[in-house]
Amino acid sequence: MPKISNKGQQMPESPIRKLVPYAEIAKKKGHKVYHLNIGQPDIKTPDVALQAIKNTDIKVLEYSHSAGFDSYRTKLALSYQKIGLPINKEDIIVTTGGSEALLFAMGSTMDQGDEIIIPEPFYANYNGFATASGIKVIPVISGIESGFALPPISDFEKLITPKTKAILICNPGNPTGYLYSETEIQQLAALVKKHDLFLIADEVYREFVYDEGAKHYSVMDVPGIEENAIMIDSVSKRYSMCGARIGCIVSKNGAVMATAMKFAQARLSPPTYEQIASEAALDTPQSYFDEVIDEYRDRRDTLITEMNKIPGVKIATPKGAFYCIAQLPVKDADDFAQWLLESYDFNGETVMVAPAAGFYSTPGMGKNEVRIAYVLKKEDIVKSAQILGEALKVYQG
Amino acid sequence: MPKISNKGQQMPESPIRKLVPYAEIAKKKGHKVYHLNIGQPDIKTPDVALQAIKNTDIKVLEYSHSAGFDSYRTKLALSYQKIGLPINKEDIIVTTGGSEALLFAMGSTMDQGDEIIIPEPFYANYNGFATASGIKVIPVISGIESGFALPPISDFEKLITPKTKAILICNPGNPTGYLYSETEIQQLAALVKKHDLFLIADEVYREFVYDEGAKHYSVMDVPGIEENAIMIDSVSKRYSMCGARIGCIVSKNGAVMATAMKFAQARLSPPTYEQIASEAALDTPQSYFDEVIDEYRDRRDTLITEMNKIPGVKIATPKGAFYCIAQLPVKDADDFAQWLLESYDFNGETVMVAPAAGFYSTPGMGKNEVRIAYVLKKEDIVKSAQILGEALKVYQG
Ligand SMILES: Cc1ncc(COP(=O)(O)O)c(C=O)c1O
Ligand SMILES: Cc1ncc(COP(=O)(O)O)c(C=O)c1O
Repeated sequence: MPKISNKGQQMPESPIRKLVPYAEIAKKKGHKVYHLNIGQPDIKTPDVALQAIKNTDIKVLEYSHSAGFDSYRTKLALSYQKIGLPINKEDIIVTTGGSEALLFAMGSTMDQGDEIIIPEPFYANYNGFATASGIKVIPVISGIESGFALPPISDFEKLITPKTKAILICNPGNPTGYLYSETEIQQLAALVKKHDLFLIADEVYREFVYDEGAKHYSVMDVPGIEENAIMIDSVSKRYSMCGARIGCIVSKNGAVMATAMKFAQARLSPPTYEQIASEAALDTPQSYFDEVIDEYRDRRDTLITEMNKIPGVKIATPKGAFYCIAQLPVKDADDFAQWLLESYDFNGETVMVAPAAGFYSTPGMGKNEVRIAYVLKKEDIVKSAQILGEALKVYQG
Repeated sequence: MPKISNKGQQMPESPIRKLVPYAEIAKKKGHKVYHLNIGQPDIKTPDVALQAIKNTDIKVLEYSHSAGFDSYRTKLALSYQKIGLPINKEDIIVTTGGSEALLFAMGSTMDQGDEIIIPEPFYANYNGFATASGIKVIPVISGIESGFALPPISDFEKLITPKTKAILICNPGNPTGYLYSETEIQQLAALVKKHDLFLIADEVYREFVYDEGAKHYSVMDVPGIEENAIMIDSVSKRYSMCGARIGCIVSKNGAVMATAMKFAQARLSPPTYEQIASEAALDTPQSYFDEVIDEYRDRRDTLITEMNKIPGVKIATPKGAFYCIAQLPVKDADDFAQWLLESYDFNGETVMVAPAAGFYSTPGMGKNEVRIAYVLKKEDIVKSAQILGEALKVYQG
């Protein structure tokens, strides 16, 4: 029997996959499960996007251009310019989700055995894309004590070797909710400039920033690192269009874009209908975003208030995105998460959380932490926190 | 300035990309260009698929399951069973095009430096996927003299090394149009069994078979190689739904599927709307296919008849798909193809063909060959062949 690849064996499983059967058990028992474990917003997709699909009159569903529809790239560039980012059509390749943009970025800049430094905890699939690309993730630890702020630049420098090709950040962060300050972005810029590295910034949560006066700083907004900066973007969260699978890779580095284009050509094109929806989504009125941000801010505040009522729980207030890491008074969050589904209910209800260990690449890290996504209605967040609190009273790890 | 990867440098360019600017020049001059160079059918997409999208009432465009919609996989499995292929839902992962299925197949079975044997000429993007995956393509030459039949098994065996992990075939073939016989498939099956290799079969053109009594033999239909066989499929050509980006990877090898699933989870899900369309497309009436196949048969016969009138042209009659390789009385088909666009017109019209060298991985092969896609109306095929004939009279390579 032929064997699968080592790479395939090393590909990480989704950190919540193991729990799915237990969630099914809970549901079979008739228990209601509050899903705090996934980044799937419950927010409505803008009408203008969905309507554009209904209005499309396609007769032959053809391949689009490998870089994406010209009209979409043009309008997308304009939308970036409107928020002050000097991005032109030529700097954009439309991808099948931010996921594919990450793959193209890694493939275009790194070879087998090369190293990429990522502050951890980080979006779990970075591990998957790195493994698929044969590159090594070098984590630099950011801690809950500092609210997951950027680790000291000296911590990065200690890790730089001749194999280091890039630093990858997620801003605002999944799973931390941390929003990097202008100073932190400038520090990273100086670092990549000094060591001739790429700075890949996953900015798919750009709009989700909650504190008054807080501003998102894009790597595309830093003069002097035009050749270093690669931005990853996506419509998934911005417009609650996760199923669209439309994202993009953005860079002013012509060699990077020409290379990414070869990867794009090999896979032919991104999906047609969803490009149409994504282009139309650019006309979403500001009021939509205002409402969504208000809603998430409210959810965040509710979550933090409710979680802080639970003895022994420590939480770093997220400034952006819609996740946070919570430290729980348990030894093994994996076991606790499984127990919640398998053996616990509070009046017929329970919660599903994502054990945080899957968001770290350093073994042993995050054992007593979970990631909570606040993508549920306020009432459900209150209930979920209450259930967690009650559960922690009876759980014996 | 940070450097792009070696892998990125090695990624092949699309074999027709260089010609695109020349096609634009021709069009700017006001010349009509007949596109024989691309595999984009002009056939209408089935109504039932397009209508399903219009009828969909999505409020929140969510991620779908990483393996694809359960309902789609169930119905797809049934459709395979109807044509005699013993495929169950669990044997299928829905992918973003056959393209992604090829990437998953390579990633799941091969590591950096491993070797895959492919009869050449082959679909040019196999080179791209192999490069992206860090694996080495070992071509085994099939010739125009035999109509691009399967090379002798001894030719394969000569190339097998400890690094060989798989054989990849395309059946019916792009760019050759060759349809493997049952005997040939059986020979390959015995070979992969003997050497414990995977047999990856790209069967995206399965329905496009033209000769009376000719039958497509799937690798999923060969008892005894359940653990070796991996099938690649796609809705792109079957339903003229190239822009949908929906395909699938199919195997009865549980380890392969579990591994491919990890790649699938990392990229989250295939596009939602097009999965809905693909599921609906399974209800396309047989009459649609009958008409399409009749149309292509007619086009093929026309192309062959017309091309055979041109002195010095040699063509292997394709038995399936909608491509063929034509040997031309020129030294350098690349130069000829460019000249056709840049310097030639016949009553204001010219043709664009794909130089065949890009479909070979052995340097120097296919220099006097082009790939012709017969995806145009019969009248346009007649005209295109006429233009080619006239052009060859005046071209001085
Ligand atoms: C930080 C981050 N980056 C990228 C992605 C990928 O999103 P998509 O491929 O849907 O654009 C996600 C999805 O959850 C994410 O959280
Ligand atoms: C032989 C072959 N395989 C795979 C593909 C990929 O098709 P898709 O990704 O659209 O399914 C093509 C497209 O032309 C092809 O010709």
